[in-house]
Amino acid sequence: MGAPDDEFRLIADLFAPLAAGFPGALGLQDDAALLPGPPGTDTVVTVDAIVAGVHFLPDAPPEEVARRLVRVNVSDLAAKGARPVAALLAAAFPKDADADWLRRFATALGDDLRLFGMALAGGDTVATPGPLTLSLTAFGQVGQGRAILRSGARAGDGVWVSGTIGDAALGLLVATGRLAADAILEDRFRLPRPRVETGPALVGIASAGMDVSDGLVQDLGHICRASGLAATIRADLVPLSDAARAAIGSDHSLLATALTGGDDYELLFTAPPEQEDAIAAVAAATGTALTRIGAMAVGEGVAVVDGDGTPLALGHGGWRHF
Amino acid sequence: MGAPDDEFRLIADLFAPLAAGFPGALGLQDDAALLPGPPGTDTVVTVDAIVAGVHFLPDAPPEEVARRLVRVNVSDLAAKGARPVAALLAAAFPKDADADWLRRFATALGDDLRLFGMALAGGDTVATPGPLTLSLTAFGQVGQGRAILRSGARAGDGVWVSGTIGDAALGLLVATGRLAADAILEDRFRLPRPRVETGPALVGIASAGMDVSDGLVQDLGHICRASGLAATIRADLVPLSDAARAAIGSDHSLLATALTGGDDYELLFTAPPEQEDAIAAVAAATGTALTRIGAMAVGEGVAVVDGDGTPLALGHGGWRHF
Repeated sequence: MGAPDDEFRLIADLFAPLAAGFPGALGLQDDAALLPGPPGTDTVVTVDAIVAGVHFLPDAPPEEVARRLVRVNVSDLAAKGARPVAALLAAAFPKDADADWLRRFATALGDDLRLFGMALAGGDTVATPGPLTLSLTAFGQVGQGRAILRSGARAGDGVWVSGTIGDAALGLLVATGRLAADAILEDRFRLPRPRVETGPALVGIASAGMDVSDGLVQDLGHICRASGLAATIRADLVPLSDAARAAIGSDHSLLATALTGGDDYELLFTAPPEQEDAIAAVAAATGTALTRIGAMAVGEGVAVVDGDGTPLALGHGGWRHF
Repeated sequence: MGAPDDEFRLIADLFAPLAAGFPGALGLQDDAALLPGPPGTDTVVTVDAIVAGVHFLPDAPPEEVARRLVRVNVSDLAAKGARPVAALLAAAFPKDADADWLRRFATALGDDLRLFGMALAGGDTVATPGPLTLSLTAFGQVGQGRAILRSGARAGDGVWVSGTIGDAALGLLVATGRLAADAILEDRFRLPRPRVETGPALVGIASAGMDVSDGLVQDLGHICRASGLAATIRADLVPLSDAARAAIGSDHSLLATALTGGDDYELLFTAPPEQEDAIAAVAAATGTALTRIGAMAVGEGVAVVDGDGTPLALGHGGWRHF
């Protein structure tokens, strides 16, 4: 269950017993579930809901909303090592939704689903007196028993991320006028780019994994809880884009924003040290930077330290609704 | 795609091309989709969204909301002939949702899922500034190629319904103070009872089917469109409860409410005449009345006639949001 805020911990606790007896629910500790698929496969299913004014800016163009909806789900599938197949849409449209907006939304949704090899398999459309609320259930396929789960990390495994971290959180500050204009950062916030090649390539290599959606520190906390371990990451090893590095250079408090802000949709995974060559090969084959930023250990919780091992205080360890 | 209102016809038209190339989408003309399942099975998937103040009364107790959410989806699975397996919940809770309400909702959700043999496999929980919005994706299993689809009717098939029709629409009038108190009718509105035994028992017997959720006339129209046929139903053959018969006896305009109102969650299906004995056997085995109310024919549209064949004018052919 996604739980973006502490107030939802209660909900997670309340729902956990409802998964009893169904192994594919993964104890509701993962961001996807497994259903038995055709011979040799598991069907990976995930659902993400987005609300206007909460998960995207109320004035976001319909193309941006459609792509975000598709991609936050595709990112979950990719992080499990699955290839996307199909999706179901549940849409609650405000009564004043205009035909042009809907037309643009549907066109962009179709284009983006096709881009990721998916079809719309069904859905439900209702009216709401509230804000536009969209939920997409996405289906993917992975080899039977091969999905990359949150729960598979072992003490001594390295902690790895793809790409660069923090651009989207800084991009949100740009998009909302709280940080000087920067097209690269803002684009990273507005258009998630799920790692659809790299995720499946890590099947058999990564011991655990998920995508970075709530924020690096909070999401690593999810892996720690599901795996029953602790993690330490070195802030100076976390890969930053030039744009993020420049912003943090001007205001060092933005480092915490980068490490705890959401919406990166990069891969966060763990792997044993003997897989480092295989990881380098995946990075080369998929043209994606994969960077080791820390390690898993016995214990619990996530510690962020600087280059000489001094713990950093980051404040709240995750993403907040804007 | 569920499309409760004409204004959503546009949306259905816009989304239809997004299903291209994926046979399990059933052209988005059905209320469920098919994914390949383990050997010998298809996985039936369906999603239904409900919004406070639109699909349930804003002051409905949490138990009623939870049961409605589960049962509208289970009803879709049953109508396809599938047995429920698991569900994913996407929940947008208002920020002022209180812990007691959530606790009661989760407990009732768990109890009802268990009642129907399902587990919660995952989900997503977000905050919304709008009304409580819940969508459940439900998974069921049916023999491979055996699901009862909307598109399978043939000219000459009989049109059948389970149970009694119209109680829920009249019950909504009771619940909102527009019709004299009647506990039976109101209960039929507040607590859907999906036909989970009868639906799967009709596999191999029914040629097409769905549940009555938008209203008998509108839903039969969905079967007509998907099957490329017309249907005629005899109003005097439509099974009514004693309570509905009494209400209609006092105000004959309520007959249209019963025939076009939603929320019955009865089965609506077609079957060739040679299956009448098999249907009688299913009715006896599952303790469910199954009544032939009309027939399918070449053409398009749904005609409702009285006992001597005179067409009835029912006004709008489906359910409206309250």
